[in-house]
Amino acid sequence: MTTLDAALTDTRHRIETALNAVLPDAALPPERLHEAMRYATLAPGKRLRPFLVYQAGGLFGETGPALDPPACAVEMIHAYSLIHDDLPAMDDDDLRRGRATCHRAFDEATAILAGDALQSLAFRLLAAAETPAPAHRLAMIETLAAAIGSRGMAGGQALDLAAVGGTPDAADLEDMHSHKTGALILASLRLGVLAAGAVDADAAQRTALDAYGRCIGLAFQVQDDILDVAGDPQQLGKASGADARHDKTTYPGLLGMEKARAFAVELKDRAIAALEPFGSAADPLRRLAEYVIKRDR
Amino acid sequence: MTTLDAALTDTRHRIETALNAVLPDAALPPERLHEAMRYATLAPGKRLRPFLVYQAGGLFGETGPALDPPACAVEMIHAYSLIHDDLPAMDDDDLRRGRATCHRAFDEATAILAGDALQSLAFRLLAAAETPAPAHRLAMIETLAAAIGSRGMAGGQALDLAAVGGTPDAADLEDMHSHKTGALILASLRLGVLAAGAVDADAAQRTALDAYGRCIGLAFQVQDDILDVAGDPQQLGKASGADARHDKTTYPGLLGMEKARAFAVELKDRAIAALEPFGSAADPLRRLAEYVIKRDR
Repeated sequence: MTTLDAALTDTRHRIETALNAVLPDAALPPERLHEAMRYATLAPGKRLRPFLVYQAGGLFGETGPALDPPACAVEMIHAYSLIHDDLPAMDDDDLRRGRATCHRAFDEATAILAGDALQSLAFRLLAAAETPAPAHRLAMIETLAAAIGSRGMAGGQALDLAAVGGTPDAADLEDMHSHKTGALILASLRLGVLAAGAVDADAAQRTALDAYGRCIGLAFQVQDDILDVAGDPQQLGKASGADARHDKTTYPGLLGMEKARAFAVELKDRAIAALEPFGSAADPLRRLAEYVIKRDR
Repeated sequence: MTTLDAALTDTRHRIETALNAVLPDAALPPERLHEAMRYATLAPGKRLRPFLVYQAGGLFGETGPALDPPACAVEMIHAYSLIHDDLPAMDDDDLRRGRATCHRAFDEATAILAGDALQSLAFRLLAAAETPAPAHRLAMIETLAAAIGSRGMAGGQALDLAAVGGTPDAADLEDMHSHKTGALILASLRLGVLAAGAVDADAAQRTALDAYGRCIGLAFQVQDDILDVAGDPQQLGKASGADARHDKTTYPGLLGMEKARAFAVELKDRAIAALEPFGSAADPLRRLAEYVIKRDR
């Protein structure tokens, strides 16, 4: 795992430098709004989605600055979604990544606006990027917008809220997660491919990368559910047992802990198998799949 | 005013048909989210921003379907901003355009997500449009994203909330309005110009249209403040006196009613004067400037 740790650390430095440069200065008015945007986006995080952008771009020969705007865009969208999901009207969470959630550190109105403005900024970055060619930039914007809209991430959050107190089955749960978190993970990989100018990339390779994305997206969520039951709140940076308190159906709740763990392993194996067309160039993505189900936070 | 009424009615029919076609079907899951998006966007409205897109496009020779995606995009952004501004954590309004606000008709979580998803859909429409050329579509996306972000509309709402209970002067008030509502009005005109493929339009004409947009944007807001004090709640479709209840500084509050009315007239005159380079082709925009300060709702 040391190799992956080094790669993740590199990504963290790269993306945090890039985010710091494109987020509005906190000294610019409206200062409080800009502080909140920076607070939420620059909070400690795994930077999984930027990592996927950089790795997918690398598989198609792009490792340069062309990848920074899409990497920043997906991380800003992720930050916006966490801000809004944590609001009192949604999951009502006080802690996130070991710190006060945005509406607790600032106030609800500022948190709502910070999320809204981060969404706009993500699209602005993609539109204003110098590369790739205009048609590819439009494809990135369309891909991201579709992934996070009512038939993607926002819709997944609506399904999640609607399911509270209900009795979703495994298919419902997978459908919800594939929208709520899976769509942005898939989009991160696709944006990397598009930023590499590989819009006409070999169809088999694109299909393989999509399959990988779907499997690690769901594996990530299964592991999240497992950690919520069995994890260490100190490591997690938030209270465990939140799903049960919110009356949310989880994989351990639905399948039992043993089968939930086996399902995570199966998804990891399928993710790794999907990467076959890429040879050893995809090793960091393989290690990421291992990490996703081994992580303790 | 009959000519303007006819033009506004034409715009209403055109934009409502276009919006109906691009908003997700309410029968598609998540149904409640899609219902909320349609409820808020298809609510009765003046459709001022789409009117500006169509008129600005027309000044540069475009009247066809190329104008529909930007017209839908600005109206969706307007609808999203109203949904979020009405939330309990913001202005806490129960009525909008004579109907229950989105979070009252549905619930807070659904309202937040409907606004979020409308923002994404607006950018998706612009990215997926068939015309104008890719570089112009990117310019539309960048223009819109900048207009609604933390240095535009979302920032203006933050300034508005921050000013509550304070003592802003006329410059502060104009600064707040130029961001909160002015930026999207200006962007509507600019998107019409871009959709007409007139990105290299005569600089003097673009400057003139910007000046027009700034003046009617502020005139609209001054008249809004006047109506909030002196308007008929039946006509307005919402309670009057809301600004005073929210402890918000208004133009009548700052200048007195007589000077506020005179300021609105001055802005209208400046807006009309700015249109000089366009000759009679800009008559509908001139009539709109008259309407903005004469309207009773």
